[in-house]
Amino acid sequence: VPYADRAREKDGVKAMMRIIREHHPAPFAPPFLKMGEHVIAQTAAILHFLGPRLGLVPEDEPSRILALQLQLTIADLGTEVHDTHHPLGSHLYYEDQRTEALARSGGFVRERIPKFLGYFERMLGDRGHLVGDAASYVDLSMFQVLKGLEYAFPKAMTRMAPKIPGLTALAARVAKRPRIAAYLASERRIALNEDDLFRAYPELDIDPEA
Amino acid sequence: VPYADRAREKDGVKAMMRIIREHHPAPFAPPFLKMGEHVIAQTAAILHFLGPRLGLVPEDEPSRILALQLQLTIADLGTEVHDTHHPLGSHLYYEDQRTEALARSGGFVRERIPKFLGYFERMLGDRGHLVGDAASYVDLSMFQVLKGLEYAFPKAMTRMAPKIPGLTALAARVAKRPRIAAYLASERRIALNEDDLFRAYPELDIDPEA
Repeated sequence: VPYADRAREKDGVKAMMRIIREHHPAPFAPPFLKMGEHVIAQTAAILHFLGPRLGLVPEDEPSRILALQLQLTIADLGTEVHDTHHPLGSHLYYEDQRTEALARSGGFVRERIPKFLGYFERMLGDRGHLVGDAASYVDLSMFQVLKGLEYAFPKAMTRMAPKIPGLTALAARVAKRPRIAAYLASERRIALNEDDLFRAYPELDIDPEA
Repeated sequence: VPYADRAREKDGVKAMMRIIREHHPAPFAPPFLKMGEHVIAQTAAILHFLGPRLGLVPEDEPSRILALQLQLTIADLGTEVHDTHHPLGSHLYYEDQRTEALARSGGFVRERIPKFLGYFERMLGDRGHLVGDAASYVDLSMFQVLKGLEYAFPKAMTRMAPKIPGLTALAARVAKRPRIAAYLASERRIALNEDDLFRAYPELDIDPEA
């Protein structure tokens, strides 16, 4: 689907901030989607809006609500990932909260990763898709989260691998979808990095069973 | 609207856990809504589902998406409130993370409360409702969040009051709606308390300007 990633263009951040300041209703924060004069913020709301337009969610209401519910649970997992490196808040640098980040990451790899991924593996069952009987945006989000967790917490994810065969296979299938593969190989794909949600800080890559 | 709060009934928690274990698709965690055989988790998804059925959101798609977007931003604020007393995670007692809770609460009252509430005050404008031209579930959520913040962070909220006249008036109007008033006066209303999201820990009630 054609789209422009404005924030990465020249003066893109300035243009983005202008929308946050001047548009009504405004986003609280990026990311947001601008489609004509329509501005939508909050990833889960954007996906709920785009899903049926892109054929990435079944059209019946129970499926759309289930997709939203699962996406919000993925978002909760994402928030907890953020807290592993910023437990005291985004107003402080990581370097000023390393000790606390260690404590939070310990609980995250030992208790939260197994709880979240165990849940999604159960929801997946042997159906091959998290919602309905075809790929949905929830499958794509799950792919991204698994890649991020493998990047940030390789030791914990190595331990998890035998317990999440379904999710692992799902992620592999998503990566092979021709358009996703083309996207991943393109400059549009931003490599995982330490300014983003999933950060490879070796000291936080705690072995949950050590 | 008639409903049963099952978790508060005899063996209610057991019944709730059974649904989490056995229903498909299952909730990741409470709260969830059971309507016949339909189980929906995630507060924002529940409200998105119930909104049009209860006349608590305009029926057009842009309004419903805007309501979802604002509700998710309220949920983000709620998550940050949780982190004020559990910055190292839910796997530890509050008593074991008091120092970290102090640091996180400082940033929260100084930077995050003004940012979030300033945003919602702007979104409200002089329209009297956050979505459309009538009360929606987003207004009800905003009422609950303001009550919770006043309970947990009275010093910060006293400082904020002059800057959020619209939200303050909105909360007062919500509390006076006859059915909401009846609910608030009933046993169904659980008083704010220290086992819940908003906690009145005096040491965390930091004066942002002190």
